[in-house]
Amino acid sequence: MADPIRIIGTYISPYVRKVLVFLSLKGVPYQIDPIIPFMGDDRFSALSPLRRIPVLVDDWVTLTDSSVICEYLEERYPQPALYPRDIVQRARARWLEEFADTRMAEVFIWRLFNQVAIKPFVWGEPTDTEVVAATLAHDVPQILDYLEAQVPPTGFVCGELSIADIALACFFRNAGFAGFTIDAARWPITAALVARVWQIAAFRELAPFEDRLVRTPIPRHREVLTVMGAPLTPDTYGTPTPRRGVMQV
Amino acid sequence: MADPIRIIGTYISPYVRKVLVFLSLKGVPYQIDPIIPFMGDDRFSALSPLRRIPVLVDDWVTLTDSSVICEYLEERYPQPALYPRDIVQRARARWLEEFADTRMAEVFIWRLFNQVAIKPFVWGEPTDTEVVAATLAHDVPQILDYLEAQVPPTGFVCGELSIADIALACFFRNAGFAGFTIDAARWPITAALVARVWQIAAFRELAPFEDRLVRTPIPRHREVLTVMGAPLTPDTYGTPTPRRGVMQV
Repeated sequence: MADPIRIIGTYISPYVRKVLVFLSLKGVPYQIDPIIPFMGDDRFSALSPLRRIPVLVDDWVTLTDSSVICEYLEERYPQPALYPRDIVQRARARWLEEFADTRMAEVFIWRLFNQVAIKPFVWGEPTDTEVVAATLAHDVPQILDYLEAQVPPTGFVCGELSIADIALACFFRNAGFAGFTIDAARWPITAALVARVWQIAAFRELAPFEDRLVRTPIPRHREVLTVMGAPLTPDTYGTPTPRRGVMQV
Repeated sequence: MADPIRIIGTYISPYVRKVLVFLSLKGVPYQIDPIIPFMGDDRFSALSPLRRIPVLVDDWVTLTDSSVICEYLEERYPQPALYPRDIVQRARARWLEEFADTRMAEVFIWRLFNQVAIKPFVWGEPTDTEVVAATLAHDVPQILDYLEAQVPPTGFVCGELSIADIALACFFRNAGFAGFTIDAARWPITAALVARVWQIAAFRELAPFEDRLVRTPIPRHREVLTVMGAPLTPDTYGTPTPRRGVMQV
């Protein structure tokens, strides 16, 4: 029996979450090294040249980029299928994952979550409340209007649960950490979908770790996760000092 | 027989180029609506919510994002295979495509090509020569050092020609439009790979259109392509006035 897969990257990241949900749904055991990417050392840079999380390390490969990792997991562990079988639906699912990973990331992570969490807690810089207000007034509604037209009123985006639902729901978790909830009166279909996806065991089992970490100072993350019984690797790539890399911040 | 596939987006874009090379290698006929994305109208926004090019329109689907389109083309037209068959190599190929589409895009398109071509010719703004100098001094060598360690001395990145080689070579074309050539003394393996990929007929047949368009004022692109015999659609989504969208500029 091979060692469990190692995932490097914090539970707070939507990209890490996507991969952990995939692993859980596919029944693949893993251990996590829950570093904040800004606190990765030079060995982390060597594993992840763009200093992105998650990194997956298993007996075959070291991989970065959550989309690449999910495609790999789907091919190595085909059951249950998390990409639609139909070619057109599969393309749609991949597009919605891309939409989440780029546009929703830009708005929910780099404008909202960055302003209310990363800037104060990683860099000790103040939140720019004007950026937050403008994002909530303009960009967020644009995203939700788009999704509301894409999502069916029942079931999942492409019929069965797929990468599309998982990716969208991952980003709405981070929007939630930044204090945002979907207005179910204005966007009822999207609100219901996200609530449905969050009810899946693979999401529910991660939520306590996430909810706790967002209220915990970064230097205490490991200690808190240890007490909670998270499946941790040894601390391998972390440093106490954040640094800016090539990542977008 | 269905109508030819329509591709919306200019020959100058590395993302459009990737898809056109795919179509050519797979022997799938297409027509192109060669708009600059900043000059797409509201119907273009409806097709491409992030105002990205290329958009593919065929008898089954309307799709955006070049990576999603290439996966779709691979599944619909499996021969010749342009993703490696081996799971690990396929993951590597997808990662290098992602590296090209994000990091190389950031450096070669949004810092170099944007400064020397898009800013002056689309927006009438001056080139920031300090940005160009810093990019050439720091970011470009970092990319080339990384690639030099990934690329084998002969053949293609993952053995047979794949999406990885095509994606990398597409971005080096735009670097070339911005005046950059790879120093073959410093990065001989990457320089040789790119030269090898550019020699493929699917790249060579596009080069005259690209070389001509980068020297042609935008309002005359269609006229020039018509004279050259490019496989054009009617002008469907273009406007004479550029506008900034949600795209990164």
